[in-house]
Amino acid sequence: MNIGFLGLGNMGGPMALNLVKVGHRLHVYDLSAASVAHLVEAGASAASSPAALAQSDVEVIVTMLPAAAHVKAVYLGDDGLLAHVHPSVLLIDSSTIDPQSAREVAAAARQHGNPMLDAPVSGGTGGAAAGTLTFMVGGETTDFTRAQPILAAMGKNIVHCGGSGNGQAAKVANNMLLGISMIGVAEAMSLGVALGVDPKVLAGIINTSSGRCWSSDTYNPFPGVMDNVPAARGYSGGFGSDLMLKDLGLASEAARQIRQPVILGALAQQLYQSFSLQGHGSLDFSAIIDLYRKGD
Amino acid sequence: MNIGFLGLGNMGGPMALNLVKVGHRLHVYDLSAASVAHLVEAGASAASSPAALAQSDVEVIVTMLPAAAHVKAVYLGDDGLLAHVHPSVLLIDSSTIDPQSAREVAAAARQHGNPMLDAPVSGGTGGAAAGTLTFMVGGETTDFTRAQPILAAMGKNIVHCGGSGNGQAAKVANNMLLGISMIGVAEAMSLGVALGVDPKVLAGIINTSSGRCWSSDTYNPFPGVMDNVPAARGYSGGFGSDLMLKDLGLASEAARQIRQPVILGALAQQLYQSFSLQGHGSLDFSAIIDLYRKGD
Amino acid sequence: MNIGFLGLGNMGGPMALNLVKVGHRLHVYDLSAASVAHLVEAGASAASSPAALAQSDVEVIVTMLPAAAHVKAVYLGDDGLLAHVHPSVLLIDSSTIDPQSAREVAAAARQHGNPMLDAPVSGGTGGAAAGTLTFMVGGETTDFTRAQPILAAMGKNIVHCGGSGNGQAAKVANNMLLGISMIGVAEAMSLGVALGVDPKVLAGIINTSSGRCWSSDTYNPFPGVMDNVPAARGYSGGFGSDLMLKDLGLASEAARQIRQPVILGALAQQLYQSFSLQGHGSLDFSAIIDLYRKGD
Amino acid sequence: MNIGFLGLGNMGGPMALNLVKVGHRLHVYDLSAASVAHLVEAGASAASSPAALAQSDVEVIVTMLPAAAHVKAVYLGDDGLLAHVHPSVLLIDSSTIDPQSAREVAAAARQHGNPMLDAPVSGGTGGAAAGTLTFMVGGETTDFTRAQPILAAMGKNIVHCGGSGNGQAAKVANNMLLGISMIGVAEAMSLGVALGVDPKVLAGIINTSSGRCWSSDTYNPFPGVMDNVPAARGYSGGFGSDLMLKDLGLASEAARQIRQPVILGALAQQLYQSFSLQGHGSLDFSAIIDLYRKGD
Repeated sequence: MNIGFLGLGNMGGPMALNLVKVGHRLHVYDLSAASVAHLVEAGASAASSPAALAQSDVEVIVTMLPAAAHVKAVYLGDDGLLAHVHPSVLLIDSSTIDPQSAREVAAAARQHGNPMLDAPVSGGTGGAAAGTLTFMVGGETTDFTRAQPILAAMGKNIVHCGGSGNGQAAKVANNMLLGISMIGVAEAMSLGVALGVDPKVLAGIINTSSGRCWSSDTYNPFPGVMDNVPAARGYSGGFGSDLMLKDLGLASEAARQIRQPVILGALAQQLYQSFSLQGHGSLDFSAIIDLYRKGD
Repeated sequence: MNIGFLGLGNMGGPMALNLVKVGHRLHVYDLSAASVAHLVEAGASAASSPAALAQSDVEVIVTMLPAAAHVKAVYLGDDGLLAHVHPSVLLIDSSTIDPQSAREVAAAARQHGNPMLDAPVSGGTGGAAAGTLTFMVGGETTDFTRAQPILAAMGKNIVHCGGSGNGQAAKVANNMLLGISMIGVAEAMSLGVALGVDPKVLAGIINTSSGRCWSSDTYNPFPGVMDNVPAARGYSGGFGSDLMLKDLGLASEAARQIRQPVILGALAQQLYQSFSLQGHGSLDFSAIIDLYRKGD
Repeated sequence: MNIGFLGLGNMGGPMALNLVKVGHRLHVYDLSAASVAHLVEAGASAASSPAALAQSDVEVIVTMLPAAAHVKAVYLGDDGLLAHVHPSVLLIDSSTIDPQSAREVAAAARQHGNPMLDAPVSGGTGGAAAGTLTFMVGGETTDFTRAQPILAAMGKNIVHCGGSGNGQAAKVANNMLLGISMIGVAEAMSLGVALGVDPKVLAGIINTSSGRCWSSDTYNPFPGVMDNVPAARGYSGGFGSDLMLKDLGLASEAARQIRQPVILGALAQQLYQSFSLQGHGSLDFSAIIDLYRKGD
Repeated sequence: MNIGFLGLGNMGGPMALNLVKVGHRLHVYDLSAASVAHLVEAGASAASSPAALAQSDVEVIVTMLPAAAHVKAVYLGDDGLLAHVHPSVLLIDSSTIDPQSAREVAAAARQHGNPMLDAPVSGGTGGAAAGTLTFMVGGETTDFTRAQPILAAMGKNIVHCGGSGNGQAAKVANNMLLGISMIGVAEAMSLGVALGVDPKVLAGIINTSSGRCWSSDTYNPFPGVMDNVPAARGYSGGFGSDLMLKDLGLASEAARQIRQPVILGALAQQLYQSFSLQGHGSLDFSAIIDLYRKGD
């Protein structure tokens, strides 16, 4: 299939590579010449601009961009995708943005005759490289069905979350809970250990009790409890605190727009903001446990 | 074995019954004559006072009391257990109290020649009746070994958490995390649904993603997502909000004493306190989701 | 002076009237015919559209609109003020919006040859009617000097806060502190009274101690402490909780954009959001004390 | 008058000196020989123990101790004041402790035939030396009247807050509000300045607007805004963060006992706890603004 791919960063690059690997013909664009060159080496062809990419004979366009402002510019700008794309080309935006913006862009696309899906991912750069991402997809069922084989080349779980924007809504809700849980585990582990319990014993109890969660049993933030997690390597790698901060910001901003309280969510956002202000934004998000331990 | 049992309430009553069922000879005491009568019918004998119970020929005494003040009164009072108990009788306190108080009472017991364990439980009245409680035990290893067969008659998981007070510390840490997680799930589910996602679809995504936790996959607070949970029956039964409030209070008070921050934990405590002030303290603790939904 | 006035709502209406009263010739526009008619009766003339208002011979245009989206539409829209206004007409926006949006619109105005000030107010509808508002003004000093006599017809304190957007920044900072203080007073009064202190005695102590603040000594939320405050009349009138919620939302959103933590500010926002969700958004913002009192 | 004084620390020492200066005969006790020697030089006589002090011919005993545990030990201990003091000697405890403990000790004193007042102070070591403290007094009116001239030698404002424990209740409520306000000012000043407003201009606006409070107009935490405040001297001197932390802990613990929510109060406590954990507990409490500024 002829697929356009726009946005070849840490996530988009390996995702596009996986599409090439299964035999699709990719036409790619990125501001970074090096990123484009890397894909061209692998067999993709390069577009000179988003407009050129849109005017080519692609059947599907996938975008992977940093934030809503970029998505709006790329799709809605005077020289953007919608101004040039052929009708009925399927548009898939895998960027993580707020549901409201996703719905606005999808509505504009629909008006132009293009079906559009929001399809944000979880799984990180590791999952992008391995092709094991989870896609949370919002949009029409027929469009979802059409997108499924393409997404399956990049991910393992492809979940239809309902209408337009619902992929973003599901991701934002899950990641807000993740941020809260991680801080909760950080507090519980720090408290229990400060009260005298051995960290591994405590984690063992929590992981078989009602406190059990992904942040405790799969990604424990307390050093020495698990191998192969960021806590075991100085909180390098993983999912950066600044990315968690961005997602918590999306959640609280989406909540504000629909007048929905998110009390712990807002506090989690502020704690990650403090942590980032102190200069730790590039550490894995489990490093937030440093707020609770002496001599951080 | 001759076992004394003091405190035959909603938890203590069924726990004592399970000891009788496996053939132990129980000598019991409670302020409620009805509770005592119920055990006597089942084959236990009644003590006329804590002192009388202590002076009998029991080898082990188990206590199950509402709060630290009761535990201190029963053990340390002028006419309390320590004033009358024979040396080397094993003392097991299954009340949920703060670790500091547990350590004080255990130290006093030790000085009197009695080994003592703190052994708070999780699993609720259902687990107490079914004999499937989890015991989190703090104290010496030899004492733990001695207690294990007795506790095994009342529970399924018997976990040694380390020295004196560590059973309480582990429980307090786990339950603080549970309170945080439950509110986190309440916020995430309410936000995602308010943004348009179907509750079952959202729960399905969370339960296979990084937001996964016991509060979402086993005890989801959103009505209609699961059967056989309090959310499916108007939040009746289950683990009462006022009990969660008590445990969060123990956590924040224990944290205060050792000067350990518990930021989300303290906020969770205050939210449960507000919920209780509004008159909902007897509802299951998953009912906290009402704070996030219109027309509660 | 010939002055254009756009936005004749609860605040804009009485402000425009005060300009008429001191002898200015007003040319006004509002979507509500009734609001326009009221001003015309008082001596103003009516413009048929924002464009018509912009093309008239006004020397200054004042706008008073509900939110940033309206301000952007009115100024930057295809048929908006900037598309039609004569160069060097002074633009004064008294709407309360986020500093970033204020700066964007002012930059667009400047590029078009028009000086622009952001000049949000405090003092409520009472201050608008009495002409005793406080104006917090952002923009060039020469423009501020030019605007001063006009603003003085509508307000008592006209404060220059620095460059463009700084009027909004100052207002947002002050009102965030106000929201925090009000909840703080609500908690402190409720706690002290629940502990047994008479509310008037407690307020007297606070007002002469380090807890003293406007929310305690001028606008005390506890019923029975002061006359002539919303707490004395069932929390009717005053500054609505939903307006406080809007301002706290502006504060936390402005903070998010510049990556500045506002921990208590974000929590205050969520508490007002909860209060609003429960249906109390139209009560005065001091009614938030109901969160802390039984049987609200 | 013959007055006993027990507890000659940073606060008690200068308070006792002021009593000597106005001509009272003081009989003093402290664990620190140096502190006692300092008072003896000034004309006081030394007691060899609390019991000895109680058995002397004093008409009034004033105590100034670090925490409730000390107060309970000194008054209720086997060799404590109540075991030895002559009936009808007036007991005044100026320690800052929780209202509940104050009421327990006062009830024990009353049973022994001794009137007792709780009379915690505000004003810091500066106020103690200058004799300008504020006393918040709980107890019977006749006892308050009797104590007034004595307290007036050490303070400027002597406020009767109602029955036993109410002095502590009023102090705890005021200081909780102070902690909240200070963090609120820290956030508002940091946000406004980060948004581009000059700190002095911003403080000027807040101090004449609805955000006005003691923490902004008398003790502003932002460096450069005021002279003669801790922010002007690196946050040395003043009211230590660890003392604020203690008072916030008393507030949240008192609230817990009576089941009263204190949401911002509990969060303020945790933020001071974090600040203390990071090693800043000895800085003035206005230094909490460092949580909100880069490169702290």
